[in-house]
Amino acid sequence: MNSIIPLLQQARKASISIRKLGDQQRRDVLLLLARAIEASEAQILDANQLDLDAMPDTDPKKDRLLLNADRIADLAGSIRQVAALEDPAGAVHLTRELQAGLELQKVSVPLGVVGVIYESRPNVTADVASLCLRSGNACVLKGGKEAVHSNTAIVDVIQQVLVEFGLPEAAVTLLPTPREHVQELLTATRYVDILIPRGSDSLIQFVRKNALVPTIETGAGVCHTYVAPGADIKKAAEIVVNAKVQRPSVCNALDTILVDRSAVDELLSAVSAPLQAHKVEIFADDIAFPILTELGYPYLQRATEEDFGREFLDLKCSVKVVSGVDEAFEHIETFSSRHSEAIITEDADLAERFLEEVDAAAVYVNASTRFTDGGEFGLGAEIGISTQKLHARGPFALEKLVTEKWVVRGNGHIRT
Amino acid sequence: MNSIIPLLQQARKASISIRKLGDQQRRDVLLLLARAIEASEAQILDANQLDLDAMPDTDPKKDRLLLNADRIADLAGSIRQVAALEDPAGAVHLTRELQAGLELQKVSVPLGVVGVIYESRPNVTADVASLCLRSGNACVLKGGKEAVHSNTAIVDVIQQVLVEFGLPEAAVTLLPTPREHVQELLTATRYVDILIPRGSDSLIQFVRKNALVPTIETGAGVCHTYVAPGADIKKAAEIVVNAKVQRPSVCNALDTILVDRSAVDELLSAVSAPLQAHKVEIFADDIAFPILTELGYPYLQRATEEDFGREFLDLKCSVKVVSGVDEAFEHIETFSSRHSEAIITEDADLAERFLEEVDAAAVYVNASTRFTDGGEFGLGAEIGISTQKLHARGPFALEKLVTEKWVVRGNGHIRT
Repeated sequence: MNSIIPLLQQARKASISIRKLGDQQRRDVLLLLARAIEASEAQILDANQLDLDAMPDTDPKKDRLLLNADRIADLAGSIRQVAALEDPAGAVHLTRELQAGLELQKVSVPLGVVGVIYESRPNVTADVASLCLRSGNACVLKGGKEAVHSNTAIVDVIQQVLVEFGLPEAAVTLLPTPREHVQELLTATRYVDILIPRGSDSLIQFVRKNALVPTIETGAGVCHTYVAPGADIKKAAEIVVNAKVQRPSVCNALDTILVDRSAVDELLSAVSAPLQAHKVEIFADDIAFPILTELGYPYLQRATEEDFGREFLDLKCSVKVVSGVDEAFEHIETFSSRHSEAIITEDADLAERFLEEVDAAAVYVNASTRFTDGGEFGLGAEIGISTQKLHARGPFALEKLVTEKWVVRGNGHIRT
Repeated sequence: MNSIIPLLQQARKASISIRKLGDQQRRDVLLLLARAIEASEAQILDANQLDLDAMPDTDPKKDRLLLNADRIADLAGSIRQVAALEDPAGAVHLTRELQAGLELQKVSVPLGVVGVIYESRPNVTADVASLCLRSGNACVLKGGKEAVHSNTAIVDVIQQVLVEFGLPEAAVTLLPTPREHVQELLTATRYVDILIPRGSDSLIQFVRKNALVPTIETGAGVCHTYVAPGADIKKAAEIVVNAKVQRPSVCNALDTILVDRSAVDELLSAVSAPLQAHKVEIFADDIAFPILTELGYPYLQRATEEDFGREFLDLKCSVKVVSGVDEAFEHIETFSSRHSEAIITEDADLAERFLEEVDAAAVYVNASTRFTDGGEFGLGAEIGISTQKLHARGPFALEKLVTEKWVVRGNGHIRT
């Protein structure tokens, strides 16, 4: 294939058919799709096996690529959940009479064509397709070549369902994998309304640098938990340990423990046993290092400058001891990726100051940053966590797959 | 100056002070600012004269650069209007208990630091500063070097008012004009939250290509008015003429008359006299050309391909005759810049189909596209008209100078 533009044009045309579907029809498409995914388990797993066979066992992406009966069931379940969510399109946000007989409305409408660029995980294919169909959008999917058989099998099932409903297959288009087509996608402003890169930091940076199509940045999470003076150390320890170990490979996991000098001894005493049990490697600053040495902490390193502002995505974290609240806030301002930030404190004024001043998509008092998630927030499946401030901040879920349109109905009105 | 980064850092720091201001304080700052602008009329006009003297009289930008007593009064009036608007920050969009004692809120908060890159018009300086201060944001302004004295004089007045309120001057920062600093601004993702280019298409395209900071595209307006079969020709003619001549230099002015074959004779007969009176040059397609020749229309050219999809910004328009509704919709889909599109029709079903299917920021039935404007829509002053779909579509006014923040208050909550 020389160009993907014809595919993008077809997707754009197909988006009109999807936009015109009624709410119940969209739900019906998804419910049938969930059944079809379950019924096609064998084909999808066969295709997945081809992808798995081609990937070395040592590749850390192998688990993300893997599908099995449970994960297929999860896929179908997730589609049913999306079907049950409320349609974000169609809402009338404002009605105003500009002059006698000249009526203005601001209405919520589907975006049109949503582009997603992603890597190994084939479940993204089904998640994105179902979110887009639910909200009246078409989508163009650029998956990784390591998942090409799995993605093709899933999109085949989706397209069969579309055809059964008399809808154009192009409403869910899987783009060819070769890298040379990425540039066409990134600059296809006439056909693609929004691009969401989902995957490694290098993928996201590449898209950000080269896209002309408006992009949502779903960036890295460099997340701090700040244990303030006078914090309840038991709460602090439970939250810190949970934020680090409950699922270390994700973006809302803790990266740096910020702890006030007045609380550091007590806090490190409280967390060292549970962190040790999970073999968490600690990169400690000059104050925390001797304390952890004293406690006999076995997985200990001296922190270097690079260990602050670093997203570990692993059973690793850094510890920074601060003198007072201002230093803590300044550290967060300097090193946060503005994803999720927490304070542990019993001081209500300080808590409110933290919530107001700290600039992040999600800010927490006395809770684990691990809650930043579309599902946990009650929004349903998400396409990613936005760390920028335009359009969507935090979980990018169904409710954000719309834009506005200004509709004006007159009767010969002119501007004077 | 070697780098503008220190200025951007100061603006970011200043944004916290502005964010913390109460609603009434923000209004008070603007009200004093309006008075200070009026009181400084002489200085501002002197500075403006320096800019005017340096610009050749033949430069078409000269009128945009010009300030006078009336325009200063307008500036102050516009600031007072912004002061009277409702603060978009602080709204709580959602409150949800995630678990017993774990409360989630989605709140509306200021963006932080708003960057605007613009050309000759010094009124943009005061408009943007007042919109940003009203909504709790700092701003960094990169004006054109042809307006440097005017902009400096206006920012001096603004900064004096900030100082009177004990606020940091850096909350409204005028950046140095040399071009080499633009790249720093476009990539300053840690300090600038949003960039809005306002001006020529080449400026906008440059920003779109090179910015890493999220950008709002305030693009060109290639606007069609489609006269459908059976349209009321009197209404059609009034609207077409108004959309073209009332203010031809702006983005919501008509560029192309699309007219059904069944209505073309009557329509052109009706519009030729008023368009001729305004010396509107018409680029007519092969069907319209002989009709206008027959009518003795004096300012007539044969349309070339380039005359469709062209933004004239002048007393010029093209005429395209279509056979049926589908061809009209297809023409708009191909050539529209998705800014403002109108249909003239007495057919209610066709009107609704147009409003639904045509993909543009503003869609009209039986009204002039000239209404697409923050002021006309009742939103107050605008920073520009967004022709993309993320965050803001159509007039980018005060209500869009905010983002969301997810606030979670717990009491030791962890994720299991």
